Amino acid sequence: MKILVIGASGRVGSDLVEKLLADNHQVIGTTRQDKKLFDADNYSQLDLDLLADKEAIQNQMDNDIEAIYFVAGSGNKNLLEVDLHGAVKTMEAAQDKGIQRYIMLSTVFSLDTKKWQSSAIANLKEYYIAKHYADQWLVNDSTLNYTIVQAGALKERAGTGKITVNSSDAGENTIPDVAATLAAVLSANSASKKVFSMQNGDTLIKEAIANL
Amino acid sequence: MKILVIGASGRVGSDLVEKLLADNHQVIGTTRQDKKLFDADNYSQLDLDLLADKEAIQNQMDNDIEAIYFVAGSGNKNLLEVDLHGAVKTMEAAQDKGIQRYIMLSTVFSLDTKKWQSSAIANLKEYYIAKHYADQWLVNDSTLNYTIVQAGALKERAGTGKITVNSSDAGENTIPDVAATLAAVLSANSASKKVFSMQNGDTLIKEAIANL
Repeated sequence: MKILVIGASGRVGSDLVEKLLADNHQVIGTTRQDKKLFDADNYSQLDLDLLADKEAIQNQMDNDIEAIYFVAGSGNKNLLEVDLHGAVKTMEAAQDKGIQRYIMLSTVFSLDTKKWQSSAIANLKEYYIAKHYADQWLVNDSTLNYTIVQAGALKERAGTGKITVNSSDAGENTIPDVAATLAAVLSANSASKKVFSMQNGDTLIKEAIANL
Repeated sequence: MKILVIGASGRVGSDLVEKLLADNHQVIGTTRQDKKLFDADNYSQLDLDLLADKEAIQNQMDNDIEAIYFVAGSGNKNLLEVDLHGAVKTMEAAQDKGIQRYIMLSTVFSLDTKKWQSSAIANLKEYYIAKHYADQWLVNDSTLNYTIVQAGALKERAGTGKITVNSSDAGENTIPDVAATLAAVLSANSASKKVFSMQNGDTLIKEAIANL
């Protein structure tokens, strides 16, 4: 499958691209870096400016892209322009190009504002607001075949291959497990038009996704 | 009518409250200031924290409020929390309380991102993004009986009583004319579920609104 990964140089993005390449997908990764991030033949790279207008973003998307991952983030530096409006512009562009499959990396409880009282989230309030409205646009205002993967705190630890989904509490995630979960939802019918939270747990990723 | 004006101390808000009081409405103005902003018997005041959660905001809204104006703004200081999420929380609170009439002061071309290339708007990009998603929530995601008044540049000049609506170009507005237009849409059926831009022009405000 030809896949666009927006945010290929990030911690999750680079792990995700590696997995997709290993699965023999053709991957276009976007990054602002000049250096080619991956050496594989099935990898190519694009400098996609999320601050550009929707038409410019759309013009850089190949016609034969079949799925888009949004795993970019501004690191709280430009939440309105990147995490919110940048994300929504890629959704609009995807929709207008007829690319139906759109997978968003988001954050636990992004759509459940009642859970935002916890101190962990209160400290990330602006980030949560940006992700909230981007996710909401995807669910309520787009016609895309979306999956929103809401991961809790990201930890740079080895993957476990096991997760828990839709727990009532937030929990930690190893980055390889988040990347593996993102890769696993790609063609899973059970993940179509679904929003789910994840954290490390006891269920094999594939099984957790099959039971969404 | 009992009316809540969110942002009563602002340049437009204070003019608007004066007009509503003169029209014999009962007005509750929200402001962070302790001092009572208006001396009239039909005026009362509330310190409504837009950073509080939706429930707290809702609990401060009297049950017999019949219309809400949102004319608050953070002056670019807290766009995500105030202009976007603060606004949407008041919409949700209104909706959950059964207050149907909701009038939003917004900015010209807030919903028309194709017009954002002009340098005037490019310099206000983050403000536009915040207003865009708040307005979009109101139109697409709420069940409120809204009117969105999209005013161009606000000027501290005497009112003219005349405006042009839905011009293809942005233009200037005197603050008294914006306040008068906001007051005039309150009970106008022609303004129900309408979004319109305004600027000073040649048509009497009442007439321009009747023809929306």
